[in-house]
Amino acid sequence: MTSVITLLTDYGLADGHVGACHGVIAGLSPASRIIDVCHLIPSGDVRRAAAILAQTIPHLPPGVHIAAVDPGGGSRRAVAVEAGGHVFLGPDNGVLSWAVHASGGAKAARELANEDLFRRPVSPTFRGRDVFAPVAAHLTIGRALADLGPEIPPNRLVSLPPPTSLVHEDAAEGEVLSVDGHGNAQLSISAGDLATLGVRPRGRLTVWLGRRHLSVPFGETSGAAPPGELIAFTDSAGLVVLAVGSGNASQRLGLPPGARVRLSRTP
Amino acid sequence: MTSVITLLTDYGLADGHVGACHGVIAGLSPASRIIDVCHLIPSGDVRRAAAILAQTIPHLPPGVHIAAVDPGGGSRRAVAVEAGGHVFLGPDNGVLSWAVHASGGAKAARELANEDLFRRPVSPTFRGRDVFAPVAAHLTIGRALADLGPEIPPNRLVSLPPPTSLVHEDAAEGEVLSVDGHGNAQLSISAGDLATLGVRPRGRLTVWLGRRHLSVPFGETSGAAPPGELIAFTDSAGLVVLAVGSGNASQRLGLPPGARVRLSRTP
Amino acid sequence: MTSVITLLTDYGLADGHVGACHGVIAGLSPASRIIDVCHLIPSGDVRRAAAILAQTIPHLPPGVHIAAVDPGGGSRRAVAVEAGGHVFLGPDNGVLSWAVHASGGAKAARELANEDLFRRPVSPTFRGRDVFAPVAAHLTIGRALADLGPEIPPNRLVSLPPPTSLVHEDAAEGEVLSVDGHGNAQLSISAGDLATLGVRPRGRLTVWLGRRHLSVPFGETSGAAPPGELIAFTDSAGLVVLAVGSGNASQRLGLPPGARVRLSRTP
Repeated sequence: MTSVITLLTDYGLADGHVGACHGVIAGLSPASRIIDVCHLIPSGDVRRAAAILAQTIPHLPPGVHIAAVDPGGGSRRAVAVEAGGHVFLGPDNGVLSWAVHASGGAKAARELANEDLFRRPVSPTFRGRDVFAPVAAHLTIGRALADLGPEIPPNRLVSLPPPTSLVHEDAAEGEVLSVDGHGNAQLSISAGDLATLGVRPRGRLTVWLGRRHLSVPFGETSGAAPPGELIAFTDSAGLVVLAVGSGNASQRLGLPPGARVRLSRTP
Repeated sequence: MTSVITLLTDYGLADGHVGACHGVIAGLSPASRIIDVCHLIPSGDVRRAAAILAQTIPHLPPGVHIAAVDPGGGSRRAVAVEAGGHVFLGPDNGVLSWAVHASGGAKAARELANEDLFRRPVSPTFRGRDVFAPVAAHLTIGRALADLGPEIPPNRLVSLPPPTSLVHEDAAEGEVLSVDGHGNAQLSISAGDLATLGVRPRGRLTVWLGRRHLSVPFGETSGAAPPGELIAFTDSAGLVVLAVGSGNASQRLGLPPGARVRLSRTP
Repeated sequence: MTSVITLLTDYGLADGHVGACHGVIAGLSPASRIIDVCHLIPSGDVRRAAAILAQTIPHLPPGVHIAAVDPGGGSRRAVAVEAGGHVFLGPDNGVLSWAVHASGGAKAARELANEDLFRRPVSPTFRGRDVFAPVAAHLTIGRALADLGPEIPPNRLVSLPPPTSLVHEDAAEGEVLSVDGHGNAQLSISAGDLATLGVRPRGRLTVWLGRRHLSVPFGETSGAAPPGELIAFTDSAGLVVLAVGSGNASQRLGLPPGARVRLSRTP
């Protein structure tokens, strides 16, 4: 049987850290398949890691999913969370919470406390290699969740506040969920929310930023934006994205992750 | 039997898109091996993707090769092309054409129209995940090409104009085939063309750019260029490359992809 | 049996070079598992490649490890070195030497001279694909080390001078081992060396740079540095790193790889 382990980290690709995680897993679980979800999460950006994991998990096969993004540098407890046929491993800082929610909610959780399953000594700056990778490998070769450590009531797990989106009669309110490497701002407002407001693809919508407002075309893809022009489109997660052709929408509009945004149909 | 699926995209590595493609494939075809050819194609650069696929294909085992680079954002029909023991999947915008040619030409082609093989709903911005990945996986687990959709006469497939190179008595004429991330300009002129002109490694050649001309050393590798100096060398595809030590040859010489270049032996 | 082949190169990820190496290996050795250690070594930086390989090797399973970083552009002889249950393949320029040392020293070595195992013609700019990849694949499918070419006495292999670290009564002397993409300077001085001097985590240490000296906090992780402030911490290899919060320590302190550094306890 092939077992799948996925990796999501902020380690970057410029040194051997990701390779070391692969090596630890391959050594313990030679038949496993490793999928790299992403290693270029901005350092310590728990929110972006949580968003990417939640948006990718519907497309990943049942497996063990590691999210090693922890600005606390390893001081948070490490946990395993079972949800929707998956096991998620990561620090208990909320990085897993959106993916767990997208998978139907936590069925069970354990603290990773069984040091027999760790690679020792554990480096405080590198739990991906020394804790999460070996524990994931052990899970794929027959260890039970119960062997990992003491049970945690799922409602005691740290959760990120869920991204909000509210559809009023004439406007949808939400926030910037994440900003990608091009500066595109992904909102918590979905294409479905816009449809409710009567905004149609190839129509226009109004973006409200505090007191300012801007009317922008609502296209089907990002390809349509002329250089320097602002557009909105629906991304592959079904969410509305604000982008500038050959530019950085997040910087230009002053929209960092978490910023509030309101959208309405341009009359 | 191990089946090979290769991926070439402009998705970048900063979010979960490539991971999602791996996940879809692994879920449907657990025994397949996935090879990432490249995911850092500049967004929508069909020509560069075509060049990289054509230059890499001689080194890839028989398999299903995906090239998901489509500035049209999914409006082009999606096709499968059989050539030289491979199946190529991509938009019908020419991105496959040079690799198909390098593999001996199209033996058969199909439009990807059988939606039972897709991941639905299909995101218009993400056919790599929703169309190409699942179709590739189905091909490796026993689906026949004929099941994918209606036949396309190979001569109706979109082709990129083949890069030209012409060797006259005293000069070779060609064009910039692609520019890599360092600004090195790969020409459609081969080391063999230069040999015909009597240019030998460690000799010199003259680069003609419109009315200007420059004499540059012709080295064996890129390593030899002092900072700021222009050199020519033969790359691993057997093609002549113009480079500047620690600099950007394409910008400095005004040589974007497609620009015309003439080379001769420096007397 | 699963066989592991690892790859460490300076090819970058912007074209199809790494994919071609995977393709060559997969074609010859379909059951092998390939681990990408790192492909973003700065071009020709033998020292950084050697440091990353040596620090990663303790976490990699027994296998064939390729280090294709060669500023000479393929003019050095190519070698295979057996050490600690591993086989290392690379140019004989010292890139393997620290990993071989970390694996207990060379047990045997061979020159890669048997061209039947190469992919021909061998491109002088791309031995990773044409020499190291196919030789590695052949080793995983049953070829013996003795088939690769003539024996080399291990003491004739090129070695990089080992990074020095000397602990005096009141100070540790060492050098900058490598600088990562963030400008963090990894020293050849270990956390153990500092403990000998009485420097404790959450204490302070003095960094001596020629005539200048600076007192910096010694934290447990890099996460603790406020923007613009210098800190020291222990990395996952057990070595002391100098970093600047949101900045480039190597540039700010004038500490390129190889620069001499002295550390003592701040009284």
